[in-house]
Amino acid sequence: MTKIVPVIMSGGAGSRLWPLSRQANPKQLLPLVTDQTMVQETVERFDGERFTDPVFICNALHVEAIAAQMAEIGRKVDAFIVEPVGRNTAPCAVVAAVHAAKKDGALVMLVPADHHVKKPESFRAAIEKAVSAAQDGYLVTFGITPDGPETGYGYIAQGETLETGVFKVDAFREKPDLETAKSYLDSGNYAWNAGIFLFSPEAFLEEARAHAGDIAQEAEKAYDAADHSGNVIHLDKNIFSACPSESIDYAVMENTSRAAVVPCEIGWNDIGSFTSLQAARAQIASDDHGNALSEGVMSEGSENCLVQSDGMPVSIVGLSNVGVIVHGGEVLVVNLDESQAVKKIVTRLKDGQETDRL
Amino acid sequence: MTKIVPVIMSGGAGSRLWPLSRQANPKQLLPLVTDQTMVQETVERFDGERFTDPVFICNALHVEAIAAQMAEIGRKVDAFIVEPVGRNTAPCAVVAAVHAAKKDGALVMLVPADHHVKKPESFRAAIEKAVSAAQDGYLVTFGITPDGPETGYGYIAQGETLETGVFKVDAFREKPDLETAKSYLDSGNYAWNAGIFLFSPEAFLEEARAHAGDIAQEAEKAYDAADHSGNVIHLDKNIFSACPSESIDYAVMENTSRAAVVPCEIGWNDIGSFTSLQAARAQIASDDHGNALSEGVMSEGSENCLVQSDGMPVSIVGLSNVGVIVHGGEVLVVNLDESQAVKKIVTRLKDGQETDRL
Repeated sequence: MTKIVPVIMSGGAGSRLWPLSRQANPKQLLPLVTDQTMVQETVERFDGERFTDPVFICNALHVEAIAAQMAEIGRKVDAFIVEPVGRNTAPCAVVAAVHAAKKDGALVMLVPADHHVKKPESFRAAIEKAVSAAQDGYLVTFGITPDGPETGYGYIAQGETLETGVFKVDAFREKPDLETAKSYLDSGNYAWNAGIFLFSPEAFLEEARAHAGDIAQEAEKAYDAADHSGNVIHLDKNIFSACPSESIDYAVMENTSRAAVVPCEIGWNDIGSFTSLQAARAQIASDDHGNALSEGVMSEGSENCLVQSDGMPVSIVGLSNVGVIVHGGEVLVVNLDESQAVKKIVTRLKDGQETDRL
Repeated sequence: MTKIVPVIMSGGAGSRLWPLSRQANPKQLLPLVTDQTMVQETVERFDGERFTDPVFICNALHVEAIAAQMAEIGRKVDAFIVEPVGRNTAPCAVVAAVHAAKKDGALVMLVPADHHVKKPESFRAAIEKAVSAAQDGYLVTFGITPDGPETGYGYIAQGETLETGVFKVDAFREKPDLETAKSYLDSGNYAWNAGIFLFSPEAFLEEARAHAGDIAQEAEKAYDAADHSGNVIHLDKNIFSACPSESIDYAVMENTSRAAVVPCEIGWNDIGSFTSLQAARAQIASDDHGNALSEGVMSEGSENCLVQSDGMPVSIVGLSNVGVIVHGGEVLVVNLDESQAVKKIVTRLKDGQETDRL
């Protein structure tokens, strides 16, 4: 059986989920949706003989915490690949491919550490569908069947059928305006780009070298010059810092002729903001008014709210679509229609060098 | 010069301002609008040779705190009249009159402890206008010139002119619906009933005995049987408990033919809810978007909010017309259009016997 190496990109800071997500303890290390942390949830999706032990690509600060969280659920880690600086997902993918290429014939499953998947069995079925196309040299992306005209995601247009449930990618589309998003939805031919990939390391490296030569070169060199300490691989700082910062989509997927897509309905949520966290949490457990409330919260005449407190009791009155976060000595109250703007608070804290609050 | 005895009714609990206002430390003891507590603000309005030292009618629990707050602003207290139980304002007024009747020819100024008056000099001028009518035996109420069709207050209809700026009361009107409130506003003949009174003790007692004989009798007896300890007068518990609980308006003012009104514009706000607290605070100091924020609060894209924290930093994003209170180990977030419903949270705490949170 062809093995798959789950490579979990855990480098993000999650500043749109501040003050839950903090520099020392970012969102992927937190139990945001279920009792498990996001990295635990992510790893649990890749259980069984199909998969090798997971690889994490992360910041040096978080190696210890991830290791502890893996031990908690009885999972071994193949390797921690430490990024000395963040360089977006294209260099990550190159490094993942170089690492996996050493494992005879294994494929790479490249996934973000901070997504929630409500139906992991459907996701597993989608992965199985993708295996043979990946073995044939396709870079397979998993396209989420849209359930609304979302303007916050990129879209993938399906092309010709490769095999049942697997299609060539016709085009990648940038985040659309509402009008365009509606037309995508009506056509039935588009899926959300979730940033989840399955590919053979060799095929990916060929395409990366062809379409993003400088990234491929610097990232490969940074891996080859890495400092190994047990299963922790420290990419060379000088070399990796010189690598251009680009997304895998922009650098490779939009340029290759070998992109394929497996559309799937897996109850996916990227937990990218308090809005999506509210949606994910309310699906699992909400009161009669769509509120997702942590224990002990009192609500009067409120609907579709998210309230989470790490201690102090919270009461809400007459609110609609509002998030209240009491965490780590900070209180944030946010209109869930404007939750992207939480980043601006974080930027102000950075500008004011209030590092203890970040 | 005829003296006026300021009698300050400080018996309320202010549950609509929970968690700022607590049983042990209710709203009148807090610096809600300015740096001064509400009782300090109230007393400062009655400064100068026109006035005697103030009298407080309050709960035994609060005597010490009020005494300390008066000492802080260098004010002596004539007496603390302690209510063993709350019996609304009519018995208060009787007790105030009986107490003041012992001061040769003095009038009684009966006022709630928890109102904010932005223009105290205008209020003083209104009081001066009222003095001769009060001396003539009228029970004078101060009617606030409405600045909107408010449905949360009772209204007073002006009758014939008694003297410049002083009118007989034609009628007291219950809290109106919006339609009616608009017609009152259009007529220019109505003022809000603020529950502030000036009268001679003798005139008031005559009218109370005539129109609310049982209340007058029990309250007078409770005062006569009171236990004195220094300047603290403990009303007799058994007698006062037997006194019917009624408002001065319902028991006396609506029935007497001697009611007069002085309409005035004094920047009045009853701080009856977080909505009115927001309005009062924003008038004194708001940011460019009408937000009244305590120190250190960060706001992004928010307007007309009230944020007050006794410690933990608070950030708000994209909110409109929302109150955020972090106080005494509690967090309350309330839509300022629904702030009356804060009472329901307090009721739930009472029902759950969570007395430490009240």
